[in-house]
Amino acid sequence: MKITSQKADLQSAIAICSRAINSKSTLNMHDCVLIDAKDGRISLTASDSDFVIETVIEGNIEESGRIALEATYLDKVIRSLKDNEVTIETKENYRTVITSASSKNAALPGKDGTDFNGMPPVDRTDSLKISEFSLKQIINQTIFSISPNDSNVLMSSESFEIKENVLRVVSLDGHRISIRKIFLREAYGNRKLIIPGKALNELSRILSDDTDKDVEISMSDNRIIFDFGNTTVVSQLVDGTYFDVDQMIMTDYETKVSVNREALIECLERARIFIRDGDSKPVIFSITDNNVNIKVKSAVGSIDDDIPAQKTGKDIMIGFNAKFLVESLRAVDDEEVSIDFVNSKAPCYIRNDEDNYVYMVLPINFVNVD
Amino acid sequence: MKITSQKADLQSAIAICSRAINSKSTLNMHDCVLIDAKDGRISLTASDSDFVIETVIEGNIEESGRIALEATYLDKVIRSLKDNEVTIETKENYRTVITSASSKNAALPGKDGTDFNGMPPVDRTDSLKISEFSLKQIINQTIFSISPNDSNVLMSSESFEIKENVLRVVSLDGHRISIRKIFLREAYGNRKLIIPGKALNELSRILSDDTDKDVEISMSDNRIIFDFGNTTVVSQLVDGTYFDVDQMIMTDYETKVSVNREALIECLERARIFIRDGDSKPVIFSITDNNVNIKVKSAVGSIDDDIPAQKTGKDIMIGFNAKFLVESLRAVDDEEVSIDFVNSKAPCYIRNDEDNYVYMVLPINFVNVD
Repeated sequence: MKITSQKADLQSAIAICSRAINSKSTLNMHDCVLIDAKDGRISLTASDSDFVIETVIEGNIEESGRIALEATYLDKVIRSLKDNEVTIETKENYRTVITSASSKNAALPGKDGTDFNGMPPVDRTDSLKISEFSLKQIINQTIFSISPNDSNVLMSSESFEIKENVLRVVSLDGHRISIRKIFLREAYGNRKLIIPGKALNELSRILSDDTDKDVEISMSDNRIIFDFGNTTVVSQLVDGTYFDVDQMIMTDYETKVSVNREALIECLERARIFIRDGDSKPVIFSITDNNVNIKVKSAVGSIDDDIPAQKTGKDIMIGFNAKFLVESLRAVDDEEVSIDFVNSKAPCYIRNDEDNYVYMVLPINFVNVD
Repeated sequence: MKITSQKADLQSAIAICSRAINSKSTLNMHDCVLIDAKDGRISLTASDSDFVIETVIEGNIEESGRIALEATYLDKVIRSLKDNEVTIETKENYRTVITSASSKNAALPGKDGTDFNGMPPVDRTDSLKISEFSLKQIINQTIFSISPNDSNVLMSSESFEIKENVLRVVSLDGHRISIRKIFLREAYGNRKLIIPGKALNELSRILSDDTDKDVEISMSDNRIIFDFGNTTVVSQLVDGTYFDVDQMIMTDYETKVSVNREALIECLERARIFIRDGDSKPVIFSITDNNVNIKVKSAVGSIDDDIPAQKTGKDIMIGFNAKFLVESLRAVDDEEVSIDFVNSKAPCYIRNDEDNYVYMVLPINFVNVD
C-alpha cells in the first residue's frame, strides 16, 4: 500500500475512528487503525468487536493495499510532522514508513490488514434522517443517566423509540429517568431500538453541532448504522425489551414549584462542594410559598440558601442527590423550570407543558436537617 | 474577623498562596490559608514549614481578626459565587460565613488563626533587584535539570551565585548540568546561595512575564525573601557548598556542529515517541560533514532522519537520552545552536560564544546501531 494525503485529514480521521478503540481490550488488533486503500477510496477503520467507526479521507493511492497500525503511535507520528503532505507506504513484513518533506524515515511495525475486520456489510434500505445537531443534542440530554455498570446491559443503554414522526429517547439508572422527545421531519414505521450507551457516547463526540448536516440512521440485522459526513458508525443493538417507563411516571402532584434554573444550579453546585463523591448525603429542599430553601451540612462546611420561587400546593421538605438534580437541570434549556413533587418519599419530576422532556429523580431519605 | 473584598482578588490571592501548600503534608494546618485582617491590611498566607507565601488584597475590614480556612473549600466556595463583592465573617467557634448577594449562608469550619504561623519576621536590608521577567526566565531555563529526588538536597536545589553585577544560576542532576548567566543592573557583594527547587518552581509560576516590574530579593538569617507586587515568597536556604561545576565543564572539543534548533527538537521529539518513559534507550547521533543523522529503533517503531549541519572537526557517533537534549534545547532561544563533542564517552556541551549559557548532557553507551 502507498498513499499520500494531508496531515490534517489523517490526524482528524485517526482521532475519529480511534473513538471505537477499547483501551481495556486484550485483543491487540483492537488497538489498531486499519488503513484500506482501493478503487480510489482511502478509509481508516477501528473497531471494538460490536462497535465500528470508519472514516474516508481524500488522497492519492499509488498502490492499493490494507495495513493495520497501532493507533497511538500512528497518531503521534502524524502529529509530529510539520509538513502538510504525508506519504504512508508499506514495505516488507508490513513495516510501514511515514514520510513528509522534513521526515524521511519514521517507521511503524504494521500488521496484516487482511486479518483485520473492517466495516461489516450493511443494508441501508430501512433508514431515517435527522440533523447532526439534533442527534447530538438528544444524546447529550439523556446519556448522563445511564448506568455506568456494564453488568446491566439495558441500564447502560438508551431506548430509541420511533412512533410516526416522533423520536423518544429514554435512559434510566435506578435512581432517575430521563425522557426526551423530538419531531422527525417525516413519519417512519414504529420501532423500538436499544442502543449501547458506549456507542452513543462516542457518537455524540464525533457529531458536529451543525443543524444543516444530516445523519442517516439505518437499521439492519440487529445493527444500527449512522452515516454522516465521511464517517460511518456501526453498533450492535441490544436484544430485549426496555423498561416500561410510562408506568413509572406519575402525572399527579401535591406541590409544583417554578424556579430560575441557573440560580438553582448555582446553589446546588455550591452544596456539592461539601458532599464527597460517592457520599449519599442529600441536600434538603424546604419548599414553602415563594421560597425554596436548600441546606446541606458536612464536616467540611455548610450551605443554607434561599431561592425565590412560585409554588402551588402543599409545603414539602425532601432530600436529593445534588449531582442527579444538577445533571437533569443542565439538560434543560428553559430559563424557568417547573418541578412537581408528590411527597418526601416519592420522586420529583422536572417537566414542561409541551411534554418534550421529563426528568424524574428519586429522593433520598434523611433523618434530621440540623 | 469580618472583611469585604472582591471575588477576583480573593480567588487570585488563594491561588497564589496555595502554591505553598504541600498536599502530601500530614499537618492539617498546612492545608489552610490564613486570613489576617488588621491595621487596614488584609493578607492571605499559606506555608509549608520552610516555605511561606503571603499576598495582600484590597478590601474593607469591619472587624480585625485572624482565621485559618481549608484552602480547597475556601477556593471552591469563592469560585461558586457569581457576585463581585464577598464578605467573610467569623462567628462562634471559628465558624466562618462567606456571603455574597446571591449566597447568604455558605459556612466553613475555621481554625484558630493564632495557632497558625504567618509570615516570619524578615530583614530586608541586604537586597537586590531584578525584573519579574528575568527571574522567571532564568528559573525556567535551568529548573528542569534539578533532581526530583528529595534525598539529595543539593541536587534538588539550584545554586544562585552573585559576583558583582553577574547572577549565575546552576542546576544539575547527575546526568546533565544547566548554567545560565545574566547581568544585574547594579553590582552587589559576592555571595553563593542554594535555593530549594520546590520554592523556585512555585515562585516561577507566580511571577509575571513583565520586564517593567521588579522583584526585590533579600537575604537574611538563612532565608531568601522575594517581594513583588502584593506578594512575598520566603524560603529557607540550603546549607552546604554547591558542586564545583567549573571543574566539570570542558572547553576543548574534537567536533563542533551548528544545527537548526527547531529542526533538531522536532526530530528528537519524533524519536521520543518510540522510547518509553524511564527507558534508557539512546537516540544515536552520527555526525558527518554537513549532516547529523539521528536514529532510534524499538519494538513500536523507528526513526532514521538527517538534519543539515555545519561541522568542524572529527566525525562522531554518540548516544543520548532524547528527553535531556530536548529540555536543554528548549531552554535556548537561538535559531542555530552550537554543540561541542569530545568523544562518544564524554558529555556534549550546548553553548554560545557569549558564554551566557552552557548545557552539558552526558552520553549513553550503546551497543549496536542496527
